[in-house]
Order: sequence, then structure tokens, then C-alpha cells
Amino acid sequence: MLSKKMEIADLFAFYGELLTDKQKDVLTLYYIDDLSLGEIAEDLNISRQGVHDKIKRTSSILLDYEEKLGLMKKFNLNDLLLNDIKSKMLELSKSLEDKNIDNVLLREKVKNAITIVKEDIDKMIE
Amino acid sequence: MLSKKMEIADLFAFYGELLTDKQKDVLTLYYIDDLSLGEIAEDLNISRQGVHDKIKRTSSILLDYEEKLGLMKKFNLNDLLLNDIKSKMLELSKSLEDKNIDNVLLREKVKNAITIVKEDIDKMIE
Repeated sequence: MLSKKMEIADLFAFYGELLTDKQKDVLTLYYIDDLSLGEIAEDLNISRQGVHDKIKRTSSILLDYEEKLGLMKKFNLNDLLLNDIKSKMLELSKSLEDKNIDNVLLREKVKNAITIVKEDIDKMIE
Repeated sequence: MLSKKMEIADLFAFYGELLTDKQKDVLTLYYIDDLSLGEIAEDLNISRQGVHDKIKRTSSILLDYEEKLGLMKKFNLNDLLLNDIKSKMLELSKSLEDKNIDNVLLREKVKNAITIVKEDIDKMIE
């Protein structure tokens, strides 16, 4: 499981454009530039507690977007399935080149690949 | 090209959960229940102009989400590509069953399908 910090960083990359410039600035310093709360406080000339509160508030906005839309989860799942299809295609490419694979076996492999690809796609467009 | 009304209805289906309950109510009456401005005005006991303004304001929020995130466009494009892959697989299934297609031709068809599927996937995960 991803750490909370990584999860928020991913959500920031995904939904960040919906935030205000100020919200983006703080999260960029924390999640992208990887500064500490103390360093950000110094940068922005506010208290460490103030930085902490801003990050917490803005993070919960991002979590709320995902809870309501679930789009990042869907995108990530789709990426897994697309990579699965891609590796099925690579495997099939190799079988095509393989002199040890006869036509009967090749047909079997094509049939299996088709089944898996169709299942993967149905999961994505359901 | 989609009409403006259909585009907003699609955006509402996609990003609607980010709106407030009141915003959702007005858009539901207009885009889902397909009531006229006059009918909605009567339902909500506000002026026709008031309804018009609410719909316009809320629609521009939805357009703004899409302009910033572009996720609906991406989802729609992916759906086209996924359907393209799916029809390639169906075609290949038929070729497998077709007694008139010999092994040489079948191998050619598998090779072409692999190329197209890989290209489609690269467009989706780029």
C-alpha cells in the first residue's frame, strides 16, 4: 500500500489543476520539492503550524475529489489492464517468431490472448 | 460535433459529483429530466431568469473542470481506442474460425492486429 504522502502526491498530480495558485504553491514545496514544514514556513514567512494546516486542508480537498469521482483509481486500474494487454501482445509477437511453435499451438495462443484482451477491455469500458 | 447542451450533460455526468446539491438539482431538472426553464422556475419557485443564471453559472463550473483536467476528453478517446482493439480481436476470432484462411495469412493477420493494438495502447498510456 502507498504511504499517505505518496497518495496525496499522486492526487496532486492528478487533480492539482483544480486548486488555487496558493494551494498549489504549498503542495509543490511539500510534495514535489520535498521541503520540510520548517523550510516551507521560512519560505512563505508563516508559522510551521500554519504550513501544516494548509497542507492538511488542501490534501483533504484532493482526497474529497477522488472520493467523489474515483477517476485516479479508474485511471490506475486501466493502466494495469493496458499493460497486461501490451504484454499479451509482446508474448504473441514472440510466439509468431518462434520456430518451435507450430500452427496448432499458435492458434491456441492467439485464442487465449483474444479472450484475455476482451476481458480486460470489458473491465475498462463497463 | 455535439450540441452545447449535450456537451454540458456529458460533463454533468462526469464531474457532477463535485457540485453542491443545489447545483445538482437544477442541472438534473434541465439536463436529465429535460424540463423547460419555465417548468424549472415553477418547480423551484424562482424566476425563469434565475433558473437561466443558475444553469449558466453551474455549466461554466463544469466547463472549467474539463478545461483544467481534460479527463472526459481522455476517457472518451480511450473508449474509442478500446472499442477499436475490441473489434480487432473480434476480427481475429473470425479469422481463426475461417477455414479459407490458411496459416500464412492468419500469421499475417495476427501480426497486423498486434501492431494496431500496441499503437492504440501507446496512445492511451503516453
